[in-house]
Amino acid sequence: MAGELVAGVDLGGTKILTVLADRAGQVLARVKVSTHARRGQDYVIDTIVESVHETMRMSGAPAGKISAVGVGAPGPLDPDRGLVFFAPNLGWKNVPLGTIMSERLKLPVYLDNDANLAALGEHVYGAGRDADHMIYITVSTGVGGGLIMDGRVYHGAGGGAGEIGHVTVAPDGPVCNCGNAGCLEAVSSGTAIALRARALVDDGRGAGILAAAGGDAEQVSARSVSVAAVAGDAEAVVILRDAGRYLGIAVAGVINLLNPSAVVLGGGCIQSTAALWDAMLTEVHRRTLESSLAAVRVVRGSLGGDAGALGAVALALERT
Amino acid sequence: MAGELVAGVDLGGTKILTVLADRAGQVLARVKVSTHARRGQDYVIDTIVESVHETMRMSGAPAGKISAVGVGAPGPLDPDRGLVFFAPNLGWKNVPLGTIMSERLKLPVYLDNDANLAALGEHVYGAGRDADHMIYITVSTGVGGGLIMDGRVYHGAGGGAGEIGHVTVAPDGPVCNCGNAGCLEAVSSGTAIALRARALVDDGRGAGILAAAGGDAEQVSARSVSVAAVAGDAEAVVILRDAGRYLGIAVAGVINLLNPSAVVLGGGCIQSTAALWDAMLTEVHRRTLESSLAAVRVVRGSLGGDAGALGAVALALERT
Repeated sequence: MAGELVAGVDLGGTKILTVLADRAGQVLARVKVSTHARRGQDYVIDTIVESVHETMRMSGAPAGKISAVGVGAPGPLDPDRGLVFFAPNLGWKNVPLGTIMSERLKLPVYLDNDANLAALGEHVYGAGRDADHMIYITVSTGVGGGLIMDGRVYHGAGGGAGEIGHVTVAPDGPVCNCGNAGCLEAVSSGTAIALRARALVDDGRGAGILAAAGGDAEQVSARSVSVAAVAGDAEAVVILRDAGRYLGIAVAGVINLLNPSAVVLGGGCIQSTAALWDAMLTEVHRRTLESSLAAVRVVRGSLGGDAGALGAVALALERT
Repeated sequence: MAGELVAGVDLGGTKILTVLADRAGQVLARVKVSTHARRGQDYVIDTIVESVHETMRMSGAPAGKISAVGVGAPGPLDPDRGLVFFAPNLGWKNVPLGTIMSERLKLPVYLDNDANLAALGEHVYGAGRDADHMIYITVSTGVGGGLIMDGRVYHGAGGGAGEIGHVTVAPDGPVCNCGNAGCLEAVSSGTAIALRARALVDDGRGAGILAAAGGDAEQVSARSVSVAAVAGDAEAVVILRDAGRYLGIAVAGVINLLNPSAVVLGGGCIQSTAALWDAMLTEVHRRTLESSLAAVRVVRGSLGGDAGALGAVALALERT
């Protein structure tokens, strides 16, 4: 029977993850390749198209069996037109990715923002299952988010909803990449954690963090802070607790504002240590209204790096 | 023809406003009476029922012409069951207002939170017209809010969405009524403005504000601050600017998070002076992502104190 399968693609700045799944969301094949963004837009799109074909070959399914493709892409985009407005990690501006892929694959292609699709993935297949009102937050290099309302991705008026990374949590805090001061991303992202750790090391302190970076100040990263914290380093724990505290302020704020049934957190900084997570939870319990706190579960994502590709599968299934 | 009219009731702690309107939302009669909450629940419900009858008499419309009643009530409630969980201003706990009114009036009665209905009122008849994604914020004694998403009131998982007054904007700020520190309500409400002004006066400063309160320190209120600011008093202006700054931080946050097409602000503190409004706008322009800022208009409500009752009309019309 035709149209039994869909492909989901998570297009990132460094990797492209493609999965082939059946209508139940069961993954039949999985391909992860480097993006090589510097080789240009045509190369990247060729790679995506080839990845979809490759999953077909791996599964042994005949070409007619695939009915649609979902794609998660970075940056602001227009889901209806399948147009990526701007993706600095890829060096793209106004790329009609949906149209190009659809012509190449002779299939309907549905596009959405990568964080929105990670939210949808966790909602349909992961830790946010049964939560029709769900907030997804990813904390890694940056901080992103996606909103599920009444079981669907919420886009807002112009497709830009979910940018929790640029909600102010520290009015007089450090300047963010976006130009504002005290955005969540400027105090709780992996980049923010690394910057604080480097400043500490440059100041002659942070010996435990420096050791975790192999003694090389240039190699100090959020990962070194995390490793040092796990080993009990007090300075590393303070940095992660502060990041967690601000994350908790933001999480409490969205719970009070949106009264969701679940908040699901993903990304490298969430998985790595207890210090950040525990500080986040403490702040959430402190700052959330009782009735809204009782209605919500705050949990780690269960799909890891597959959330986006599985969300793309869910998008393709939702539309077909 | 039967069922041409609907009534909208805004039940407040001090006043009950009831309007009778036609299907176009045109107001045919309007009754405003004191709530007298201390006289008890039966008295208050009698008053509401009588208000609805009074608007019918005023309009000269026969009883059969009214098809439904919408009611906005304070406090957390269950719109589906028409149940007011808790309304401290009325002294109510678990009052099945919808059922009681429906039995008394022999009409369908639809209930929602007062801030949600003010949001719906401004969306359908006021400054948020044509904005299918709209945030409403009221700044008066407290700070409340309502969310319009895809043209309808968004309730979240448990009916509690919209509580922007309890979003943290000053992590180490003053303690709020809810017990947390630095909620928007604790720094930008009329109560917060009055508290700061009284502290100033108690400290022997704030001469302009004290004069605006007739020289009586006990009478210092948000209104005195506003009057003093309009007269050019520098201390009053600083207080209102600070309140406006935090309001702007919250408004920018919800714009970044929800990408609405309009933010509509109402309540006494919004109408009173330019100082708070201008400081709010400055902060919004500073902290909102460019693409989301371009998509939104931030405006004062146009319905004043009628927003809630007109929202109740819109609710009744939406359901019938």
